Amino acid sequence: MALAVESVAAVAERAKRASRVLARADAETRNNVLESVARLLGERSEEILAANRADLADDRASGLNSSLRDRLALSGERVEAMAAGVRAIAALEDPVGEEIESRVLPSGLRLRKLRVPLGLVAVVYEARPNVTIDCAALTIKSGNAIILRGSSYAAHSNFALAAVVAEALAEAGVPAEAVALLEGGREDLTELATLDGLVDLIIPRGGEGLKQALKRVATVPVMYAASGNCHVYVDSAADLEMAKRIILNAKLSRPGVCNAAESLLVHASVAEDFLPGTLAELGAAGVELVGDEAVASAAAGIAVGRASESDWASEFLDLKLAVGVVDSLEDAIEHVNRYGSGHSEAIVTGSDRAALEFTEGADAAAVYVNASTRFTDGFEYGLGAEVGNSTQKLHARGPIGLRELMTTKYVLRGEGQVRE
Amino acid sequence: MALAVESVAAVAERAKRASRVLARADAETRNNVLESVARLLGERSEEILAANRADLADDRASGLNSSLRDRLALSGERVEAMAAGVRAIAALEDPVGEEIESRVLPSGLRLRKLRVPLGLVAVVYEARPNVTIDCAALTIKSGNAIILRGSSYAAHSNFALAAVVAEALAEAGVPAEAVALLEGGREDLTELATLDGLVDLIIPRGGEGLKQALKRVATVPVMYAASGNCHVYVDSAADLEMAKRIILNAKLSRPGVCNAAESLLVHASVAEDFLPGTLAELGAAGVELVGDEAVASAAAGIAVGRASESDWASEFLDLKLAVGVVDSLEDAIEHVNRYGSGHSEAIVTGSDRAALEFTEGADAAAVYVNASTRFTDGFEYGLGAEVGNSTQKLHARGPIGLRELMTTKYVLRGEGQVRE
Repeated sequence: MALAVESVAAVAERAKRASRVLARADAETRNNVLESVARLLGERSEEILAANRADLADDRASGLNSSLRDRLALSGERVEAMAAGVRAIAALEDPVGEEIESRVLPSGLRLRKLRVPLGLVAVVYEARPNVTIDCAALTIKSGNAIILRGSSYAAHSNFALAAVVAEALAEAGVPAEAVALLEGGREDLTELATLDGLVDLIIPRGGEGLKQALKRVATVPVMYAASGNCHVYVDSAADLEMAKRIILNAKLSRPGVCNAAESLLVHASVAEDFLPGTLAELGAAGVELVGDEAVASAAAGIAVGRASESDWASEFLDLKLAVGVVDSLEDAIEHVNRYGSGHSEAIVTGSDRAALEFTEGADAAAVYVNASTRFTDGFEYGLGAEVGNSTQKLHARGPIGLRELMTTKYVLRGEGQVRE
Repeated sequence: MALAVESVAAVAERAKRASRVLARADAETRNNVLESVARLLGERSEEILAANRADLADDRASGLNSSLRDRLALSGERVEAMAAGVRAIAALEDPVGEEIESRVLPSGLRLRKLRVPLGLVAVVYEARPNVTIDCAALTIKSGNAIILRGSSYAAHSNFALAAVVAEALAEAGVPAEAVALLEGGREDLTELATLDGLVDLIIPRGGEGLKQALKRVATVPVMYAASGNCHVYVDSAADLEMAKRIILNAKLSRPGVCNAAESLLVHASVAEDFLPGTLAELGAAGVELVGDEAVASAAAGIAVGRASESDWASEFLDLKLAVGVVDSLEDAIEHVNRYGSGHSEAIVTGSDRAALEFTEGADAAAVYVNASTRFTDGFEYGLGAEVGNSTQKLHARGPIGLRELMTTKYVLRGEGQVRE
């Protein structure tokens, strides 16, 4: 672990060197590190909670709203959950050196395509101390070094957690510099994002402001943890009770996260049957509804504002929902592809043909048939945890887990072959 | 096919719409298109050669050096080779919709991770008409639309070749707009590289100037077809006859391509045995040699200039070679990782342990044991052809074939599941 009293480049230089050791450490060594992290989280729980109390007692923390304070706060239970998460990651199949392809070429060369660590990964994240441990565990398991650039709101907590990781690395004989913690301002971020040849990937989590700032300055590869403008489409062949359960879950279970639904599209043939009851329940739960004219007329007295063009394109992250009536499955797909952010899209239908059309036509990281969009998540997908969720099409699409933190390498063995 | 008498955005808009049709066309339809391209290349050979003669007769073409003129020139044989290449791509396994993962999640959802087309790919390339057909064939096979932005030196040839592809698309009932040809200047390139949401990937081939220009302006995802500063390392346990054959092939068989060797590293224990004879043959073949002091003293009278820091880091693409003596395998790996461009690296050794150390330690797209670096190539690797060769670590590393032109999509089926 390193605190940036020195330059960001110096920290990265040492982390990169440590990454070479970690990349060649065997699976047992990397799993031993994770086992030690889990054990030390238990042993140091009191210190970690004291550090967290210091963060919460800081003047600035009192300015946070209750949801942000909740994300910042730790408890004995939450520290235990972190340790359990680390053990779950340790139990995953080892991805380092995994053989993806193998064949003998006409030249007689034996070609193997292997999964190998990226090298040095940097994650820039919001005031959520658990992200420190999730990201450190995923990168250690995948044989990478990591620079954690946390929020200054969580400085004490992050320091205590990173110290646990550093101790675990040292216990296993791996350089503790493989996990570095930065706490600097925007200048540090700019330096970090321009360390070409040292930083192999930077992943910004959190707000759009951070992403835009990075987009302007970054020269190292960036993977954007995504915003989600997710839709639920209720097809003409939908089970309407199921459809109601799904949109209520997708909108209400956690409105502030990226896999929550922001729009509901309903086929015209079921709009009158489906909308009044469903909109009444959404309204009763405090959801502000905006929609098109057809929705307003089918809403039977429930207050529905007029949806603007920007409403259709918005990730509200709040108790607000845009509702539209479409004349066909094709119109629903076109709407999704026009306004969606390529995160998670759902169709509710009893028709296999409609399900296939929608899953093929909707251009998104994850497409659901008869299920809530809320399932898009590394843990739910069996990846142990996630660094974030990608809506880009290159390299990683969907939850960023172990494999998404890795690259490949062709290794070819010959007996002196040369090319004609 | 479209020629840009209209705006680049309008061309891209139509190509993107066509990409949706191609993405959902079945394998037979896409293969029929390729079969027609191959057939029409034969039928239109005379027209294509006439168009190529017009390019070669242009005043500007007379200013090209012999190697560039050779790349621009077509012949009946070269057109036949193009057709054979297209048929080879048609014969490859269909990558569209390939199931990469499948499992049932604890929630009961059936998760499938599928390989799907990116959408619209743009390739910017030098005056090599065969690239027009290679790239069109790879994108059609992978269910993508493509914008080909060729060189104005090859305008007539490219127009004739793109017309063949357009006719083949139309024959199969696929919108001909799926393959568009642009011939504009730098402004068109800037517009193309900033069509966010329309262009899913742009791949620049050719010179560093083009790549730097794109790096400054591009807002769409870019994959850089790479430069190669490739090394051959002769280990203490090398078969020295084999080592000589390999470095002669890697340097001399085609010095102007990215997988040619630019540096030779020799373990100190074999330098005196290996260098005099090998350097004599390289010198006799017209190779300019630069090296360190140890090389100069081992060279026994052969002219060896002093290598500058920039020589070690250079992709000469010419009959020039930097030669160094290293004290250990570790030093060789460190040199490779310091100066190499991550393209192709080779070790010549009879030791399995040294081979493993080198293949694990050298940070490159392709690492060879006892073979020439010249094998890094999509066709040699069994990918049919390649759009280029990537040295980046994200998304694609090595030859860019069908899979590298694709993304993935999670499709999840449930029976009404919602998240707790």
